[in-house]
Amino acid sequence: MNNAKNTVVACCQLAPKIGDLAYNRTLTERAIRQAAFQGAQVVVLPELVQSGYLFADRFEALSLAETVDGPTLQLWQAMARELNLVIVGGFCERLPADELANSAAMIDANGLRAVYRKAHLWDAEKDIFTAGDAPPPVVETVHGRLGMLICYDLEFPEWVRLPALAGADLLCAPVNWPDGPRPQTERPAEVLRVQANASVNRMFIAACDRYGHERGVGWVQGSVIVDADGYPLAGPAEQGGEQLLLATLNLAEARNKRISARNDLHRDRRPQLYG
Amino acid sequence: MNNAKNTVVACCQLAPKIGDLAYNRTLTERAIRQAAFQGAQVVVLPELVQSGYLFADRFEALSLAETVDGPTLQLWQAMARELNLVIVGGFCERLPADELANSAAMIDANGLRAVYRKAHLWDAEKDIFTAGDAPPPVVETVHGRLGMLICYDLEFPEWVRLPALAGADLLCAPVNWPDGPRPQTERPAEVLRVQANASVNRMFIAACDRYGHERGVGWVQGSVIVDADGYPLAGPAEQGGEQLLLATLNLAEARNKRISARNDLHRDRRPQLYG
Repeated sequence: MNNAKNTVVACCQLAPKIGDLAYNRTLTERAIRQAAFQGAQVVVLPELVQSGYLFADRFEALSLAETVDGPTLQLWQAMARELNLVIVGGFCERLPADELANSAAMIDANGLRAVYRKAHLWDAEKDIFTAGDAPPPVVETVHGRLGMLICYDLEFPEWVRLPALAGADLLCAPVNWPDGPRPQTERPAEVLRVQANASVNRMFIAACDRYGHERGVGWVQGSVIVDADGYPLAGPAEQGGEQLLLATLNLAEARNKRISARNDLHRDRRPQLYG
Repeated sequence: MNNAKNTVVACCQLAPKIGDLAYNRTLTERAIRQAAFQGAQVVVLPELVQSGYLFADRFEALSLAETVDGPTLQLWQAMARELNLVIVGGFCERLPADELANSAAMIDANGLRAVYRKAHLWDAEKDIFTAGDAPPPVVETVHGRLGMLICYDLEFPEWVRLPALAGADLLCAPVNWPDGPRPQTERPAEVLRVQANASVNRMFIAACDRYGHERGVGWVQGSVIVDADGYPLAGPAEQGGEQLLLATLNLAEARNKRISARNDLHRDRRPQLYG
């Protein structure tokens, strides 16, 4: 971990255009530069920001997919090197034998550090993607240990536990949260679950949502960066649309799981009882 | 499950007096009668409402403990019979060989249905109580399937899963949430965790907190009844103090775990990956 106590983390809430790969690359380049200009050291982008989300079918998704050597990850690698950033973003990944994954890449100045493939697929994603079977990676970076998960994965607290128990200080979560009904005065449950996942693990979480209607679907637009107690440091924004959330995190706080003189959130677990 | 679609659930946020067992019995009798008068069919009381919470030491706790045949559970059984209620409340339980448990009883018109012993102990509780090893019971009542957990147990989502997977429609949670610092405009994380636990399981939760300073400790006073999507139906109250929360729940909704055309919150779990 860096000796510097504070890490500036950004979430770039953007609206990719389904199918327009060049537009989306330019969109992410602009957002990453803007975040870096404002001091960001870790930049989180939405789920599938490379391609857009609502594929008509598997064939469309296949036509838009890229490998880890594709132009989007090449761009992000060049930018991470140029601007000395950690970048986490979602992309439609082409796997061998024409399989596809809903993936996130973690890239730093040294290049591609890890790829994570979404393990819990949402709705029509089941027709398109192969679910990942590998545990979420936790990467030692100059800023601390960073993990990744994607969207619906966050509704499975057992899955969030894995990077937390593996030592993640900050969980970076590209999401595309489809909007739905809720009581007007209530914070979206998607955001609450991020807060709760952080608080039961004393782990920071940066969840980056998208905006913009796409083929009839709208989004929560609930990007949020929460501290290790689960309280927001930036977002969720009152109004939606494009957002650049920035927060300064003392990631070392996540190394201390104590919440009372006698309680440690991880050591107090009793996994032998959890079946 | 009752054919009636709606069940009226109450949380009675009370201030027991540490060590005054007769006062606490009267306090719960008054609150239970008031809840029943307002139509409650299920009444949830705070953790350790029978004894108070902040024991000076194990000896004091032992002097206040009761068995399941003690006067407090006798009173609750008489009231459940008289008023045709389900009552869930916390008590300091005397076990064989002078052991103690931080327990909750579920009582209905038929008598004592289940006892649950807190499995995750908070702070100085570790000096006083033996942690429970048994999974949270789920009891078939005339209103549906009811589960129980106690306070700090709610910070372990794996533990909350057990009654949810065992079919609980409503989780009744006696709590004593010690107050702590938080951002002024934020809902307490204790309440958020209740909401998140409900939403990832599509299970109703009624968490009943206490109020009243006791030996230097104050309380969140955050009693809340949340629906199967995690949104509050009653509470948390803006002001603290004594509260009678009432909400009408269609518990049958908890039998449906579907949250999209293709997603079921429990079937989408991948326990083989959770290690």
